[in-house]
Amino acid sequence: MANLEMESDVETTTKPAGEYEARAPRTAVIGVSGYAGGELARLLLQHPRLTGALPCFLGRSGDSGTTTYLEELHPQFGVPGTVQSHKIHPFDWDFLTDSGIEFLFMATPHEQSREWAPEALARGIRVIDLSGAWRLKEAGNHAVYKLTDADPALAAKLQAEAVYGCPELHRAEIRSARLVANPGCYPTSVILALAPLVQAGLLDLSHEIICDSKSGVSGAGKAATAKTHFMYAADNFSAYNVFGHRHTGELFEQLHLAPDQIQFTPHLLPIPRGILSTIYTRLKAPMTAEAITKVMHDFYKNSPMVRLHPTPHLPQIQHIVRTNHCDVGFALAKDSRRLILVSCLDNLLKGAAGQAVQNLNVMCGWTEQEGLL
Amino acid sequence: MANLEMESDVETTTKPAGEYEARAPRTAVIGVSGYAGGELARLLLQHPRLTGALPCFLGRSGDSGTTTYLEELHPQFGVPGTVQSHKIHPFDWDFLTDSGIEFLFMATPHEQSREWAPEALARGIRVIDLSGAWRLKEAGNHAVYKLTDADPALAAKLQAEAVYGCPELHRAEIRSARLVANPGCYPTSVILALAPLVQAGLLDLSHEIICDSKSGVSGAGKAATAKTHFMYAADNFSAYNVFGHRHTGELFEQLHLAPDQIQFTPHLLPIPRGILSTIYTRLKAPMTAEAITKVMHDFYKNSPMVRLHPTPHLPQIQHIVRTNHCDVGFALAKDSRRLILVSCLDNLLKGAAGQAVQNLNVMCGWTEQEGLL
Amino acid sequence: MANLEMESDVETTTKPAGEYEARAPRTAVIGVSGYAGGELARLLLQHPRLTGALPCFLGRSGDSGTTTYLEELHPQFGVPGTVQSHKIHPFDWDFLTDSGIEFLFMATPHEQSREWAPEALARGIRVIDLSGAWRLKEAGNHAVYKLTDADPALAAKLQAEAVYGCPELHRAEIRSARLVANPGCYPTSVILALAPLVQAGLLDLSHEIICDSKSGVSGAGKAATAKTHFMYAADNFSAYNVFGHRHTGELFEQLHLAPDQIQFTPHLLPIPRGILSTIYTRLKAPMTAEAITKVMHDFYKNSPMVRLHPTPHLPQIQHIVRTNHCDVGFALAKDSRRLILVSCLDNLLKGAAGQAVQNLNVMCGWTEQEGLL
Amino acid sequence: MANLEMESDVETTTKPAGEYEARAPRTAVIGVSGYAGGELARLLLQHPRLTGALPCFLGRSGDSGTTTYLEELHPQFGVPGTVQSHKIHPFDWDFLTDSGIEFLFMATPHEQSREWAPEALARGIRVIDLSGAWRLKEAGNHAVYKLTDADPALAAKLQAEAVYGCPELHRAEIRSARLVANPGCYPTSVILALAPLVQAGLLDLSHEIICDSKSGVSGAGKAATAKTHFMYAADNFSAYNVFGHRHTGELFEQLHLAPDQIQFTPHLLPIPRGILSTIYTRLKAPMTAEAITKVMHDFYKNSPMVRLHPTPHLPQIQHIVRTNHCDVGFALAKDSRRLILVSCLDNLLKGAAGQAVQNLNVMCGWTEQEGLL
Repeated sequence: MANLEMESDVETTTKPAGEYEARAPRTAVIGVSGYAGGELARLLLQHPRLTGALPCFLGRSGDSGTTTYLEELHPQFGVPGTVQSHKIHPFDWDFLTDSGIEFLFMATPHEQSREWAPEALARGIRVIDLSGAWRLKEAGNHAVYKLTDADPALAAKLQAEAVYGCPELHRAEIRSARLVANPGCYPTSVILALAPLVQAGLLDLSHEIICDSKSGVSGAGKAATAKTHFMYAADNFSAYNVFGHRHTGELFEQLHLAPDQIQFTPHLLPIPRGILSTIYTRLKAPMTAEAITKVMHDFYKNSPMVRLHPTPHLPQIQHIVRTNHCDVGFALAKDSRRLILVSCLDNLLKGAAGQAVQNLNVMCGWTEQEGLL
Repeated sequence: MANLEMESDVETTTKPAGEYEARAPRTAVIGVSGYAGGELARLLLQHPRLTGALPCFLGRSGDSGTTTYLEELHPQFGVPGTVQSHKIHPFDWDFLTDSGIEFLFMATPHEQSREWAPEALARGIRVIDLSGAWRLKEAGNHAVYKLTDADPALAAKLQAEAVYGCPELHRAEIRSARLVANPGCYPTSVILALAPLVQAGLLDLSHEIICDSKSGVSGAGKAATAKTHFMYAADNFSAYNVFGHRHTGELFEQLHLAPDQIQFTPHLLPIPRGILSTIYTRLKAPMTAEAITKVMHDFYKNSPMVRLHPTPHLPQIQHIVRTNHCDVGFALAKDSRRLILVSCLDNLLKGAAGQAVQNLNVMCGWTEQEGLL
Repeated sequence: MANLEMESDVETTTKPAGEYEARAPRTAVIGVSGYAGGELARLLLQHPRLTGALPCFLGRSGDSGTTTYLEELHPQFGVPGTVQSHKIHPFDWDFLTDSGIEFLFMATPHEQSREWAPEALARGIRVIDLSGAWRLKEAGNHAVYKLTDADPALAAKLQAEAVYGCPELHRAEIRSARLVANPGCYPTSVILALAPLVQAGLLDLSHEIICDSKSGVSGAGKAATAKTHFMYAADNFSAYNVFGHRHTGELFEQLHLAPDQIQFTPHLLPIPRGILSTIYTRLKAPMTAEAITKVMHDFYKNSPMVRLHPTPHLPQIQHIVRTNHCDVGFALAKDSRRLILVSCLDNLLKGAAGQAVQNLNVMCGWTEQEGLL
Repeated sequence: MANLEMESDVETTTKPAGEYEARAPRTAVIGVSGYAGGELARLLLQHPRLTGALPCFLGRSGDSGTTTYLEELHPQFGVPGTVQSHKIHPFDWDFLTDSGIEFLFMATPHEQSREWAPEALARGIRVIDLSGAWRLKEAGNHAVYKLTDADPALAAKLQAEAVYGCPELHRAEIRSARLVANPGCYPTSVILALAPLVQAGLLDLSHEIICDSKSGVSGAGKAATAKTHFMYAADNFSAYNVFGHRHTGELFEQLHLAPDQIQFTPHLLPIPRGILSTIYTRLKAPMTAEAITKVMHDFYKNSPMVRLHPTPHLPQIQHIVRTNHCDVGFALAKDSRRLILVSCLDNLLKGAAGQAVQNLNVMCGWTEQEGLL
């Protein structure tokens, strides 16, 4: 993978990583009302490196008046109106600057991330964006989010600079990045399963890779819609956005695959959280299960968040829910050619908020799993 | 029960029941977009007495233009845009009259039922209303629905005339009724469990009757709200409207109990459909389980929709879901005084659409369970 | 499809279909304790053609003494110990013969079906077997069920005679069959989606067909095991029997595909019932959605149980649960080559008991959907 | 509450609490295969006070040979056969003694706890027993567990000595206890809601207290049975053990109530974990909501694990699942007399393993919530 090979050459213009050994960085989150935002707030509040400087929480818009508290939005933060309230400030650039914020998590719609990230960077704040706004390099793919930029030249420059926040693939670049584009939940599950084999050139790409992915309902967001109604989702199962899910571009770019080499179909599972991807591949040449295992283990030997299941064990959603792990396993057909990869993760953690904190850990030079176990 | 005793004196001014042996009545439903409306449409379409004159379906408002079909609203009616479409007409009084409608089901909000039922009756159409608009006789209770009437005198007259559509209690009156107020889902489960013992005067009412009821999510309606979101309802359980649910008045009136003699607390179950009520009572004098069983059996000997579970069996939601049964069982403490009744029904069937069709059957002089097994 | 083409030549040695217009056939079911057996009993008891001769129910073994009733086994049949009890007789060949049974449904383990079906046939009883015992023609596939035969020659002869009970593919043969092997639940969903395109030779089979199937928990049977425990299945999702599910052979045989042309992976959904299969194919030559629709419609124009969803609609499990439909839809990529088929059915109905009754309807010369809508 | 008042007089014969400030105690768990045992292992392994001396895990019987690992039993401990394995030793008294175990958690069936606790105490090991073996003082109640004792006199003596492990009621006694009987899950939810009002003598006990409790399926244990089958529990709801649940005696004893003053009915919720109890009471004299709130707050002002919800908020299962909190709220009728308490807890945490660790914290003189937030 080209990106990986170049890692050692990356010049860093940001503060030396060691700085955050001595003191806690000032962090803030914009947008904590959604599921990922809530999980992000929870992770940051309990992060052992941040006890000295609790994160700030900001709403998505400036029209405040009514200050709220995390407890009002999320039951996991405690009884509304009682102890340990965490205030949510109205959004305000000066507040961010005055508070000396160094790291800004944006759990905002992609339009807002696209608009606000440049301003944050201009103010010297490093950004970890959880939306899709900065994930895709290529213009063609970029169009899927229908983004409009006030300053297209600047946006293009930042787009080029942005680092795809998958630490298992881009650890060194993330360390010094100013703008980290946190990956989509589905792509994380697919990319982590495929990267070792694709990078090693072991797959016969004349046989298209098929990614059949299934996600829990939290992936559809907190908005009350016909499709998130309990009566629609419970006892049901369905495919959606077939041939048209906007996460697909991340697969092409991160795995360096052409559009006819991989396809991805999402489905809606009647469970609160968790993604399982079943990925159908074909090996170029026959391999043993041991050889495949070795490739996977070597690739992830320094990646504590990816757990490999030894054959014949395969990961299940119950193994990873409420953790930041991505579990990967595989089954090899008797022909030693057809290979099915199964990967699982929690869409709100390794698929969103957990990976964002993992990126913060990398950016601060901390142990990657800090605050995530 | 006073109402029951007077039944034989009721004079009927409506058509003789025998008429509908010879021909199918013309029926219509206003409001088929909700869950109860959908079930009602399904039951009427498969009703063996209505094969000769399929029901008409009308939307809740006149501003049409866009005609829809049952298939667009409810997956149980088939593939949208394909065969066997059942048209939903825009609402229109003349259409109802021109179609010769004799029976009108109103699966409408109570404000609309309150406004439209008088017009339907004036046009000679008998009404089975599924809302709460006409259920309560007393002004105090009536206030819970915050109803306003264009013609208060007429509304009061119709309110007095309206029959509470619980066939097990008011069969004779329903037979000749012009306006049937179909009972609430919760009250049906509580009333059918308690009526035999209350009417026989067997309960010690100085000990308040406690009704702890639990309902599936379809009871909260089809509107997508924070509380019907899968992420809120799934894996959760909660009490709501404690001391304030508007179904409570039906218990007072139908069981002739004072407000300090019975209380009712609803809860939200993480299941699509079904209600279970656990009802705590105390007997005036010690009784045997056999004696209690006999009272219950005698009361319901002509009521095929109520099924009594022999002790020690108790009904469960799985026993009644997707049926029009109300299952009732009981457990008697060793002191032969404390008695717990458990009743179950499907909130969309015996708690709504099924009971409405049961009322139609009674009004037409047919076997009560026709089209409901 | 060779089988289909030869249909008109099949000679029937059984009774003329017209016989069952005049009178109800005598039917029996062995094995009603499982989920499929329970659904089968329900369907037969409400079948309009069988009201004159209710089916007999038999247990799986002769050691009786304790007679049971359907109500004891399945909540849907009513309150245990009360009205409308349906007796389950101990298994006994003479009882079957003395009762004049003409059609025997076997909802038994495949070992038992393999052992008993020859005896039933010898006694002149036509058999519809719901197990896997008689589905596979080829010895290699046959081995998956590890069957041992007391009379291998007879078993081989009957195996050759047995008709795969998919009416949409083998209607004419089923009509006169003595031994119908009711298809597996998963294969029904896959075969019905693929048959029109495979038979028309439209698929590029150098690209393996990938069948990613997901089933509700009832597919795992009524036995209480670690994997059917609520705590295992709820909020979870997993792949199982990867590259090794014994239903795979049915796909090879019925679709006339080689083992490297199709693969099938089952998954366990946290829902009671329903199967959805996502099937990845590639067309030999570019086609329009309209052309594909036409092929499908032509193939199923006389098959009321298969419902085609017009693009862009895709079937979901909620559309078919508790029906005997198999719903099929598709999505075509912009390249007009990559084609995803989605099919859904209820594993206990079209995937088991409903299809068995559909086969009875065909064998008796009745309308195919009789008693199934 | 008599027990509480005497607390200050209790003489402690055990080691001074301060000892465990300096060093970690040696702990062990017998029985980690069940749900509560698994949660207990998880809590102990992540307990900040135990990092210096990880707990030992023992199986329930001596016939070992096959050593297992936590990972084999519980998916939350990681991938079977890979990193961070926690060994489960065969049960062996000498192993416990040789390891210098000071605190023994018993997550064993009550028969085994009854047999083994005396031996552990004789060896100088303090015991926290999660079963029902030592909870009830009175012989009549004691009979519900059908316990037989090898040495009845010793058992009676230990029964008298055993402390009911509800820290909110018996904190001081627990601090010095040798044998702590960890409370039942249902009783914890009921006792914590009622204790403040009962102890203050505010309830009119001539009106029986009604406790309508609902629990998730993990409360039924890990054994695969007909009632823990997904097909039974999902989409269902039922009452069970009406007038006969063995947890009832804990309510009588801990709240000092007579059997005709309180009744308790358990129900099975279709969710993995969580208990909600709806508790119907009547006040002796009218009170305001503020006055009730004050009584509750004063009672729990030093009890961080009980969270009071301000009216009109009521706790829900989603608020407490996966925490060690017991949340309590109430609704007061307009008559200022009828009072409904609602309490929620996680049956595996505050209802079992979490409370056991809370007891360890108290016994070691640590902050009560240590390792539990």
